[in-house]
Amino acid sequence: MKPLILITNDDGYQSQGLRHLVEVASAFGDIVVMAPERNSSGLSTSITTSRPLRVRSVEMAGGSGYACDGTPVDCVKMGVEHFCPRCPDLVLSGINYGSNASINVIYSGTIGAVLEACLCGFPAIGFSVLSHSPETDFTPCTPTIRHILEQFFLHPLPGGSALNVNIPRLPADQIKGIRVCRQAKAAWVDSLERRTDPIGRPYWWMTGKFVCDNPPHDTDQYFLSQGYVSVVPIRPDFTDTQALQNILYFEK
Amino acid sequence: MKPLILITNDDGYQSQGLRHLVEVASAFGDIVVMAPERNSSGLSTSITTSRPLRVRSVEMAGGSGYACDGTPVDCVKMGVEHFCPRCPDLVLSGINYGSNASINVIYSGTIGAVLEACLCGFPAIGFSVLSHSPETDFTPCTPTIRHILEQFFLHPLPGGSALNVNIPRLPADQIKGIRVCRQAKAAWVDSLERRTDPIGRPYWWMTGKFVCDNPPHDTDQYFLSQGYVSVVPIRPDFTDTQALQNILYFEK
Repeated sequence: MKPLILITNDDGYQSQGLRHLVEVASAFGDIVVMAPERNSSGLSTSITTSRPLRVRSVEMAGGSGYACDGTPVDCVKMGVEHFCPRCPDLVLSGINYGSNASINVIYSGTIGAVLEACLCGFPAIGFSVLSHSPETDFTPCTPTIRHILEQFFLHPLPGGSALNVNIPRLPADQIKGIRVCRQAKAAWVDSLERRTDPIGRPYWWMTGKFVCDNPPHDTDQYFLSQGYVSVVPIRPDFTDTQALQNILYFEK
Repeated sequence: MKPLILITNDDGYQSQGLRHLVEVASAFGDIVVMAPERNSSGLSTSITTSRPLRVRSVEMAGGSGYACDGTPVDCVKMGVEHFCPRCPDLVLSGINYGSNASINVIYSGTIGAVLEACLCGFPAIGFSVLSHSPETDFTPCTPTIRHILEQFFLHPLPGGSALNVNIPRLPADQIKGIRVCRQAKAAWVDSLERRTDPIGRPYWWMTGKFVCDNPPHDTDQYFLSQGYVSVVPIRPDFTDTQALQNILYFEK
């Protein structure tokens, strides 16, 4: 039996990034797509508890396609529990428009889906390309995705393991290689812009400037700046293990 | 000048848990509350990018009160950038109705706010009590919160550090103590319940059963089951540092 690959994203089922990922992954197994109805960027690992969810079939070249009116995490739960004909061997998310390197991972619906797959016990990989343009050409991502999937099927990650893969916006022959690395520290500054509406009341738009000066040479942000693909192993655990021994004064 | 404490939550500005936290914390500094207009449970670290945000003043005994129509993360950004008279010395979130121990941390808007405060460079603490009842009495939480704040002001955490504090639902004199520990692994199973609407179409409600059998004795889930308060140091970094050396076959 061929491997089963569940694919989702946060840009919505109509995204060209999703469709490119389906096309490349369909050479490796049977594909089920369960993706959000609408753009769900910035939804992180959020879940929908205040209303019920609906699912409908959608056209999807290369696999079975479904759209769900929930978050990326909802899509993973829905796909795994109700629409996959068997347990997935791998869950993929993307290809996202825009970087999910460094702290962007915290807000990302693409990576939210990846972390949910981990919690469900399945290995998962999120792919993002460093371009927000609607005209993004995903073809240069193909060799990277193919290499990562080949390596995954040679050495399957244990369930609950995941990768956050970011691909620079470069022609395929200018991508220098692939580097395994850690998440860089960074900041978003001036993230809310104040404006005034026509009757004089204030409102604020989310915006901001990403600041990551001189990232250390073992981080995703550094390797991306040098023309490499970054691969960060991630897991759904926030424990700051280094801090555990330093804060025992909170005990009583 | 007194310390400035920014307080938010995910249950909304009207929550009794929030109001209890403000009451206890107001003995330690000046308080600014920027909390969601509505219940925002399960919103994790999501941000609002598709529409602008509004803020209004609300009554808040013990501090300056504002409600924002965004997520808990939006509230932290809004409070820090536009409504705090100076940089906060500490950001608090809660008291949440229900556990944010183990993997619940991943979905939690309460902890989403804490992680955002870390990313903004401020120390932060999230408080949750293991009760979903609207009649929850928060009084037994007071000695725990007071002790944690006393210790924080004696040994301030560096900016970017955070604590996830969970308090068992017990009378204060039955809480055995406070333990620093790590996040337990667990699973939510059968998380989407299928129903049929009056015209025969399916829909799904988020539900599920939390499964965490025999948690290791150094985890939050274990200590809570034994009647202790759990304190998990957390940080906004998903890197699986142990995996870094094991997946170098993805490089090329």
